[in-house]
Order: sequence, then C-alpha cells, then structure tokens
Amino acid sequence: MSYIKDEFLLKTKTAQKLYFGYAKDMPIFDYHCHLPEKQILENKPFSDVFEIWLAGDHYKWRLMRNYGVDERMITGDASNKEKFIAYCKTLGTAFGNPLYHWSQVELKDFFNCELEINEENAELIWDWCNEYIRLNNITPQKLIEQSNVKYLFTTNEAFDDLSTFEAIAKKDYAFKVYPAFRADKLMGVEMAAYNDFIAKVEALTTKIDDMDALERAIETRLQAFLAVGCKATDIALENVYEISSREDAEAVFKKRRSGATVSDKEAEVFKGYLTYFLFKLYAKYGLATELHVGAMRNNNTKMFAVLGADTGFDSISEFNSIHNMSRLFDRLNNENALPKTIVFNLNPKMNSEIMTLIGCFQDSVARGKLQFGPAWWFLDNKVGMERHLEDMTATGHLGAFVGMLTDSRSLLSYPRHHYFRRILCNYLGNMMENGEMTTDLAFVGKVVQDISYNNAVAYLEVE
Amino acid sequence: MSYIKDEFLLKTKTAQKLYFGYAKDMPIFDYHCHLPEKQILENKPFSDVFEIWLAGDHYKWRLMRNYGVDERMITGDASNKEKFIAYCKTLGTAFGNPLYHWSQVELKDFFNCELEINEENAELIWDWCNEYIRLNNITPQKLIEQSNVKYLFTTNEAFDDLSTFEAIAKKDYAFKVYPAFRADKLMGVEMAAYNDFIAKVEALTTKIDDMDALERAIETRLQAFLAVGCKATDIALENVYEISSREDAEAVFKKRRSGATVSDKEAEVFKGYLTYFLFKLYAKYGLATELHVGAMRNNNTKMFAVLGADTGFDSISEFNSIHNMSRLFDRLNNENALPKTIVFNLNPKMNSEIMTLIGCFQDSVARGKLQFGPAWWFLDNKVGMERHLEDMTATGHLGAFVGMLTDSRSLLSYPRHHYFRRILCNYLGNMMENGEMTTDLAFVGKVVQDISYNNAVAYLEVE
Amino acid sequence: MSYIKDEFLLKTKTAQKLYFGYAKDMPIFDYHCHLPEKQILENKPFSDVFEIWLAGDHYKWRLMRNYGVDERMITGDASNKEKFIAYCKTLGTAFGNPLYHWSQVELKDFFNCELEINEENAELIWDWCNEYIRLNNITPQKLIEQSNVKYLFTTNEAFDDLSTFEAIAKKDYAFKVYPAFRADKLMGVEMAAYNDFIAKVEALTTKIDDMDALERAIETRLQAFLAVGCKATDIALENVYEISSREDAEAVFKKRRSGATVSDKEAEVFKGYLTYFLFKLYAKYGLATELHVGAMRNNNTKMFAVLGADTGFDSISEFNSIHNMSRLFDRLNNENALPKTIVFNLNPKMNSEIMTLIGCFQDSVARGKLQFGPAWWFLDNKVGMERHLEDMTATGHLGAFVGMLTDSRSLLSYPRHHYFRRILCNYLGNMMENGEMTTDLAFVGKVVQDISYNNAVAYLEVE
Repeated sequence: MSYIKDEFLLKTKTAQKLYFGYAKDMPIFDYHCHLPEKQILENKPFSDVFEIWLAGDHYKWRLMRNYGVDERMITGDASNKEKFIAYCKTLGTAFGNPLYHWSQVELKDFFNCELEINEENAELIWDWCNEYIRLNNITPQKLIEQSNVKYLFTTNEAFDDLSTFEAIAKKDYAFKVYPAFRADKLMGVEMAAYNDFIAKVEALTTKIDDMDALERAIETRLQAFLAVGCKATDIALENVYEISSREDAEAVFKKRRSGATVSDKEAEVFKGYLTYFLFKLYAKYGLATELHVGAMRNNNTKMFAVLGADTGFDSISEFNSIHNMSRLFDRLNNENALPKTIVFNLNPKMNSEIMTLIGCFQDSVARGKLQFGPAWWFLDNKVGMERHLEDMTATGHLGAFVGMLTDSRSLLSYPRHHYFRRILCNYLGNMMENGEMTTDLAFVGKVVQDISYNNAVAYLEVE
Repeated sequence: MSYIKDEFLLKTKTAQKLYFGYAKDMPIFDYHCHLPEKQILENKPFSDVFEIWLAGDHYKWRLMRNYGVDERMITGDASNKEKFIAYCKTLGTAFGNPLYHWSQVELKDFFNCELEINEENAELIWDWCNEYIRLNNITPQKLIEQSNVKYLFTTNEAFDDLSTFEAIAKKDYAFKVYPAFRADKLMGVEMAAYNDFIAKVEALTTKIDDMDALERAIETRLQAFLAVGCKATDIALENVYEISSREDAEAVFKKRRSGATVSDKEAEVFKGYLTYFLFKLYAKYGLATELHVGAMRNNNTKMFAVLGADTGFDSISEFNSIHNMSRLFDRLNNENALPKTIVFNLNPKMNSEIMTLIGCFQDSVARGKLQFGPAWWFLDNKVGMERHLEDMTATGHLGAFVGMLTDSRSLLSYPRHHYFRRILCNYLGNMMENGEMTTDLAFVGKVVQDISYNNAVAYLEVE
Repeated sequence: MSYIKDEFLLKTKTAQKLYFGYAKDMPIFDYHCHLPEKQILENKPFSDVFEIWLAGDHYKWRLMRNYGVDERMITGDASNKEKFIAYCKTLGTAFGNPLYHWSQVELKDFFNCELEINEENAELIWDWCNEYIRLNNITPQKLIEQSNVKYLFTTNEAFDDLSTFEAIAKKDYAFKVYPAFRADKLMGVEMAAYNDFIAKVEALTTKIDDMDALERAIETRLQAFLAVGCKATDIALENVYEISSREDAEAVFKKRRSGATVSDKEAEVFKGYLTYFLFKLYAKYGLATELHVGAMRNNNTKMFAVLGADTGFDSISEFNSIHNMSRLFDRLNNENALPKTIVFNLNPKMNSEIMTLIGCFQDSVARGKLQFGPAWWFLDNKVGMERHLEDMTATGHLGAFVGMLTDSRSLLSYPRHHYFRRILCNYLGNMMENGEMTTDLAFVGKVVQDISYNNAVAYLEVE
C-alpha cells in the first residue's frame, strides 16, 4: 500500500475539514493547459500506460536524465515497457520531487493502484495498469469527466484551425473546451520558420506585408477565436521588453519579411512593441491575459537538434525586468487599456517584485484585476506553492485569488488541482489552529470554494 | 470574540515565558516613523475611527483596491462610514495579510473591541469604536503613552521648520520626540520642485548656487537638527549609485539650478556623489544613518496625478547594486568616515548579499556597527520577519540587533513592535524547545530585552 | 551540560532511526577542503585550543567583529587566552548562527567538554580544553582518523609542490589525501603577482610566453597531479564570463606578460576563454569539476592591506550570469567536452536558476552528472541546508546527490558532515512521518548512506 492516505498533505483536523467539506467536490476550471483539442474530440482509447503517462511528458524525461538513465530508455528505441520500468526505478528515490507525489496520486486516482512506485514494483504496476486500461476502455473524455472538469482552455496559436472547437461545441459533453488565443509565434521574429507562420495567418486572412496588415490579421483571428468561445489570451516571453515605437517595430518586421534574419536586439524591439499592441487589443475585447514570463528555453542545442522544443531542456531566465513591466502596465493603464492580467512568474527571486508591482494597478474592474498566477512549471510543487501562498498573502489578498491550473499536456494532470487545494487547506488550517485567523469554518470554507473554482468562473466570465 | 488570544504567535510555553516575562513590558524606541510632530504637540482628539485608521493609511488603500473596491470608497467622496465598512469587508477574507492581524490587534489594544473584522460585524465595530472614542477622548499623546513609547524619531527634511521640536522639548511628556535628518529632497535633482526645495533651504541659510554652498547649507541645517535632539539621519534611495566626482555632480547641480531639467543618468551622477557626501557628514557628527534602499516609487502615473506620492502605488525595485554598496562602504571606511549604518533592504532577493557585505565592515566602534535593518514595508509581516531572523542569524549576530520600528504614519502602529517581539520570542522559544540553543531563560530573556529596547538606546546614544 | 543532545536536529523518531541506523557510522568523504597537506604529514601536536580553533578561522573572526570586539582581540597582539575568551563571549548570544552550533559540537566531539560556550564558562573551557590537549596529545592525523574520514581532497594550485602527497601515499594512513587541481591563480591575470605565478609554473615546466605554452604547461601540471592521485578539479570565479576567443584571450595574456596591467574587461576576456579551456581539459581526463561561483572578495581594502585575503571580508556577488553558464555548458556539451560538474552557488537567489539549468545537461555518463553542490560558505548553515534540500528536490533528484563537504581550513570541521546528515535525516523523517513518502526504513536508509558517502565514491571514481 502506498504512502498516499486520504489525509495526504492535510496535517490538521481543520485542514481535513476544509478539504473534505469544501474543496474536494468543487469542479475544476483548468484555465491554461496544452491538451490537443483533437485528442478530446477523437476520444481514442489508450493502448498502454506508457502512452498515457510517459509518451509526451518532458517533466518525467528530465528526471530520468538527472538519474543517469540512458536517452535510449527515455526517448529512444527501447520498448514502452523498458521505458516505464526505467521511470519507476528513477522515481523510487526521488523523494521531495513533485513527480514522486503526482505519479503516485495518478496511479491511485486513475488506475486504482496503490503499489508504491519503485524498481521492485515496476513490472507489477505495468501489468496492473495495462490490465486496468483494457478492462475499462480509458478515453480522454472519460478522464476529463471523472476529474469533474467543467471548463478547460487549450492554448492555440493565432493560425490554428478552429474547426475542432466548433465540433466540440455541438456535442453534449459535461465540460466546455475553449481555446486561449496566443500570438507568440507571430512575435517570434527571430525564429527560422517566422515567415511560414505569417504565411499560415495570411492563408486565413489577407496578405501581410506591413504592420497595419499584421495588426488587422491578428484582430481578425482573435475574432474567430471569440466565435468559438475564447475567453482568455496568452503571452509567453522570456522577458518583458521595453516598449518600442511602432515605426521601429515595423522596420524589423519588414526586414524579416524580406527574408533577412534579425539580431537579438531587433527581435526585442519587435516584441517590445507587439507585446504592447497585444495587451491593448485584448483590453479592447475585455479578455483576460495570461502573461508567462521568465523561461530560458532550449538551453541544450544538441538535444534540440534531435528532439525539438518542449522536451525537457528549458530553465529559469535571469533577464525579466520589473522596470519594463512597470512601464508597460503604466502606459496601458494611462490609455485605459490594461486588461485583466494573470502574471505567471517562473523566477522565484522576482515573486516580491511582481506581487508588489501588480498591487499598483488594481482597480474595481475586477476583484484581483491583476493576479499573481499560481506556482508554475518549475515552481509547481509543494514548496513552490507554499512559498507562493506566503508571498501572495503577505502583500496581496488571498480571497481574490483565481487559483490553480495544470499547464499540462497530459490528461492525468487534474489531481494537481487537488494537490493545490490540499496545500491551500493545510495552509489555512494551520493558521486557524494556531490562532492566526478566524475559526469560522463555513466562512473560510467559502473562500476555499471561491479559490478552487468560483473566482476563476467570475474572473474569466464564462457564465 | 476574535481569534487573537494572549498567546498570539507564541506557539511554545518557552516563547510565552520569554514574551510575558521579558519582552512585553519593555518600553518602545521607535527610531524611524513618519508621524507629523505637530499632531503630537497639538494633541487634538480624534473624531471617529476612520480618521485614526483609514484617513492616511495607504497600506489599507492598496488592499482595498486589490479586492476590487471602487476608488470612491477608498479616497473618493463616499462617507467615512461607507469607507470603513468597505475596509472591514475587504479585510474579512485577507487571511495571511499583515493588515489582517494588525487591524484586529489595534481594535483590541486601542478600542477594547474583540469583534472579528468582517462585513457582518463592520457596522457594529464602527459604532463601538466611535462610542469608545467619544467616551475616552482619544488623543495622540494618550496613544503614545499608552503604548509605553520612550523615544520616537520623526523623519524630517533638511528644510523643515523645527520649532515644534523646541516646543515639545519644553513639555513634560513621558516620551521624547526627536527629528531624524533627511536630505532626500535635496538629492532629488530630477524632481519638478527641486529648485523650490533649494529655495526653502536658502531661506533658512544662505544663497546656494554651487556645490560648496549646498554642502555648507546642509551642514548648517544638520546642526540645527542637532540642537533639537537629532540622533539619527536617514537616506532613502531606489539604488546605491556609483560614487561620482564632486565636479561632475556640481555640473549637474548647476544645470538644474539654471532651470534646465536633467536626465536620469545625470540625476544618478548627482546622487552618487551626494550620497557619499552625506555619509561623510553624518560620520563627522557621529550620527547613525538609516539607509533605505530598493523602493520603486509611483509606478501608477495616472493615480499619481490624482493622489500624489505615498498613496499606495510603490513597489520593489530590481536596480539596487551590491557592488556599488560595497564600493561606497569601502571608500568611506578607508577615509574613516563610515558611520554606524542601518541598511533597510526592500528586495528580499538581496538579503544574503547585504547581510554578508555589512559583515565586511564591522568594527569595535559599536556592537553591530552595520545593522541589517528589520523587515521593512512590504516585508513587514510575519513571514518577512521570520525570514529576516533566519537570514540575519545565519551570517550575523542576533544579540547585536537593534530591533523593530514602525515606519508608520499612524499612531495606532505601536502594536507592531509587539508583533515583532512575539515573533522573536517564538523564534527563540522554538530553538530552545528543540534543543538548538541554551535553555537558560534569564540569559535569553536578557537578549530579548536588549533587542526590544536596550540595543537601540545604546546604538543611538540617546542616554 | 550543553543543549546538544544525542537527538540534536532530529525531531522525529524516524529521523533518529535514519541517523543512528544508517548515517552515523558511514565514513566521511571530504571532497573539497583547504587543509594544508603538510600539516597532515608533519602531524605536529597542538599546543592550545586557540591554535586549533581560532588561529586561522575567519568565520569566527567575522562574528567577533560583528559583535563589536576590537581587532586586537581577534588578529592583534592580545594573548591566545584573551582572544579565546572574547570568542566565547561573542558566541554566547549568537543564537541561530552556525558557529553557535558548530563550536558547541566540536567542544563535545573533540574535547569531551559539555560546558555551554559563553562568557561565564569561557575560562573553565579554556582550562578544560588545554588540559585535554596536554593529556591526549592531539595531532592532525588523530583528528582525521577519529572522524572516520576515508578520503580528503585538498585544494592545490597548479604550481604547488606535490612531494607531500608522494610522501603521504607511502604511509599507511587509514585515509587517503589527494590534491584537487586548481588553476585560479593562472586565470587571475588582473592580480599584482600574476607574472610571479606564471614564473612558478615555468620553473616546473617550460617557458610560457604564449597561449599555446600556457595551455601545455597547465596540462603538464595536471598530469603531475594525476600521478599523485588527483581525482577532481576546482574553479572558483565571481562570475561565469562569456566565452571569448582564444585570440582575444592571448592578446590579454601577452599584454600582461609584458608587464602591463590589464583592465577589468580584459581580465574577463581572458577568464572567459580560460574557463572554457579548463573545462575541456578536465573533460579530456574524465575529471569531475567543482565550480564555485558567486563570491565577491576583499570588500574591505583597508583590512586587506593589513591581513591579506581569506580573513573575513568576503561577501556574496550579484554578478554571476545564468545566461553565460548556459552558453558555456551548451558549447562544451556540443563538443562532447562537458565534464561531470558540481556547481557550488553562493547566491541563494540563483538556486532555482542553476538547479533548472543543470537539469538541461544531464545524461547517462553519471548519475547526477551535473550536481547542485551542497550549501556552501555563507549558506553552510541549518536554514541554508534546509532550503538547499527543498530547492534541489523540487526540480532535481535527491537520490543522485553527492552530499556534503567541509570547505574548511580547520581539522575540527568534520562534525559538519554529521550536521548535514542530521538535517538530511530530519528532512526525510518529517516527510515519512507526514505521509509524504515511503515509510520503508531500509530503502530510505540506503539512500541516506548513498548521499552520506557512497555517491561521492562512485561519482569521483576513487575506488
């Protein structure tokens, strides 16, 4: 029997009352993930546990590399079973790592398996899970429904085909699937495939050879997203760049469109303006913006050449600037064009800088108009969440928080919402039992329910 | 009845013994605050709880904005009662925020009211407090005396009128009120009103058209401060700038005096020299210097235009440089001109850099000649104080610490000294009960008393 | 009787079982220290406790300066006894400082003395320890053997005489002493004595007037180190600099060799290339590299002039760049020349950046090929170690960790390995008792033993 008990992470009686009485049965609003919407629509049953668990999960691959596992057993030509066993062996001694918890919880929640994950049990777990998959005909929709998900926002590029969302809208699922609008590839003027990306947008709009056309095309695509239910937008940047002039940005754009490459500095000029433009556009449509900052991507160019992006070779950047973020928000605010914004910060050393900055731009447009997004990616773990709660409550307002998301490519990630809720309930339970806050359970329970689900519903205006 | 009990924040028996046996009855030395000295002298009774609590407190305003309260209910034309009720509602779910604790403690300590602050109780609290104020004729001096304050240092600009301090000195108060000398506005060469500030100093000294005159005028004003009891000085900067030459600084000064504006770079040149000059001057008079670094002010220019400075739109800067701080302290030290200095750091990512740097410039002039100032402003909360104690003791000497202050504009802030003392006692109590330090209660209690009061008295040489 | 009990730092029963059942009796592998190898070979008995404890320990000197002790009582002409007593007085109230624990543990482990260290007991302790030294004929080798050390790596410059290691190798000690190869002084082109350093290498190799000769000389010296058992190398830098071209580096080198001084920028160019060269060289020989980054040295130039380097005037730098580290590791990796590397980071704000970066360069060459080195120097304390474990496990693999070292100049520092082991066992014990990991004691105990000793043996390939 595994170490995961009902009261997992809930150290006090009060924490247990909060979780079981208020948090546990709240639906899930997963307002940022990377699920392919087609996988949901197609609803193809899974063939083995490797496919669900390991096939696309670069978090797990990283941990295996850290443990000295050969790449052949990770992304190479070893069998699914060999890879699965190598992962179980790796996980066995990864005490404190979030995957150590997540994987064990997923095994219990989705496969009803309580064996501890380690080398000794690996083969048994392999057999158990595959038998379970065969017997229960596990499909994407089943996993989503079983997880009590009501809303999920995929992340789609401006040029993505939206027909799948139309098809899903006609179905009678117990949950809604909407795309979040992302124009990152249209900002990525330094990328080799940039002109191909523009061509994709052109195919859906009109010819794009100057800034005016680019801006109109982006707005046209955003309207198409809105037509299929889009309620949020997304920007992911290593840094928040200084706002540049439209003219300077256009010069870079035209240079790139002519086929020339652009320097790092030129790319920053382009992004500096376009970030500002996108925020204004999103504000015009009243759309919340999810701003992800602080990732340094593709550090290992040797493995990038072999496996491409999002394969476990990213890290935390030092470059993001709170000064630039201050100037961006202030200019937008002066122009009445600062949308509701959730800032996802990857570099924990900036937590306090960002928390205090967003506190300077709050107003009555929404409760918590500017949000300090939940602990994200490398910070999405127990200690990351605990520090996030500490940092956020120290200078912000907990009751206004829109709560958790998965940011995941995997359909098994929904237990992370409950992982977060347990930590939240434990945090509050400790303060209640320690005489540091009200002991009115129903009152606090309401706040827990709001953070678990209701705040996101209100903030993202889905109902 | 509110959740605040006698043993608030004191989790162990030992912590309780330390607090009640040693800390609780020590007087308060508030060596840095922003009270208007005139308010103390005039001693005008308060008319309602809004006036004491909310009228000038931008910490509270920020939290209300965060919760989505309309500006009309914060600084606008709503009634005092409406604003008070909006604040109580905001506070009700602000679990973990320092105001959640402070306000509840202030209610108990100053109004004998134990109702929990929330929307439901708001009107009851409003009535209770106003009745209490009417019955008890609450005045500034009463609040200070009741808090057992022995010394308080206001923060005054070089050109401030000092007659109030003279008047206070003639009174027979149970506490002393001295000004801390601040020349920040004379450093702020980039400010629109700079030449007006200089004119104010000229009115008190002589014509100031070159650096020599400026330096002499500052020294003259400092002497005037000394004559009314000044024992400390204060410098608040976003960054510690590179020391520039007197010649370069003078060029900037003359340019500004001629009516021209100066660039950011020029302002840094001016401040780089003037910071160095001021430290030397303060060392010459043996005055401790309180150096505040790391605030990024007035981020929201729209609200700045409406409400001005110090209204809740500041945040934590990324710019402060430990390298520049190292070079500044080293040069002063080489010239035997490094005064006793308390460094108040606003950016927690620099805690370890600053703690280890000041450890390089200690000598026998004073116990803890260079101090790592207490958790300040955005860090002035439970977790901020706990981390401050952890960071400070890890590389410094706890027994040498000069302890807490309020940095407040409010006469109700003195319980923060006790909030700090409870956290200190709890920190020590844990270590004592965990077998991590001596269990000699009287010996540790003496250290607690020193940090609570005695160390500040010795360090600031008031007796 | 002192507060140090058997269960010191072990708060749970499980933690105690892990420590006493698995960690306590494991040998020590001290893979980075600053002991003079000659002191070990000569094995001269100590004359008094000052000589062992205070004569060369700048950690202790710093703390005394912080407490306001006069330099005469630290490094001046006061008697050994006066200095010892001043130290005991200082330590008495330094609650939370690592020296407060270390010194008390050393007193117990090496002198069988359980008196609490403070002013009152100082003279008694002085007498007790000196009597103990007289009776027991304490020598360096005895201290090492008593501490159950099996391997220790001293840190030696490329031009150091290696004959002592040859002599030691012929002895039948219960422990091995090997030099770690360091070429820092050959990188320090900005240092006044740089050409003298080169002359020392020339005396052991050939004339060095260009980059080619320098590189060959370094390799020749490395081979000499290998001949006496060297298994590891060491690089200590304030920053990781941008990789420069060999040509640019050579220009700086030749300029310096001609007797001219070089600018800070030129020194960076030189170090940028040489760092890259050294890593490649170490990879060629399959040698693990210990990379120390983030120290800002000799801040206090007045005291540097009096006492020289390593006397307590260093601090944490702000300059180290994760971007440069990323580019360095990537280039080496592309050239199949990235050796096993342990990154020792002194600036805690970079913990997450570095942890996530090294996760991008792991492969099957070794379990944990790139290591996040243990909490070092200013971070070598309880809270530093706890945060290190939290940060490391959140994004890395605990089971792959090579564990602790002393980094010490003192023969009494080995209890720090046990200090670390206790904290490790306590960290795991908490998670086990809290239901956050397996409760299989033997399984976890094996991991504890690996981290305590076995992982370092495997990683450094000493057997």
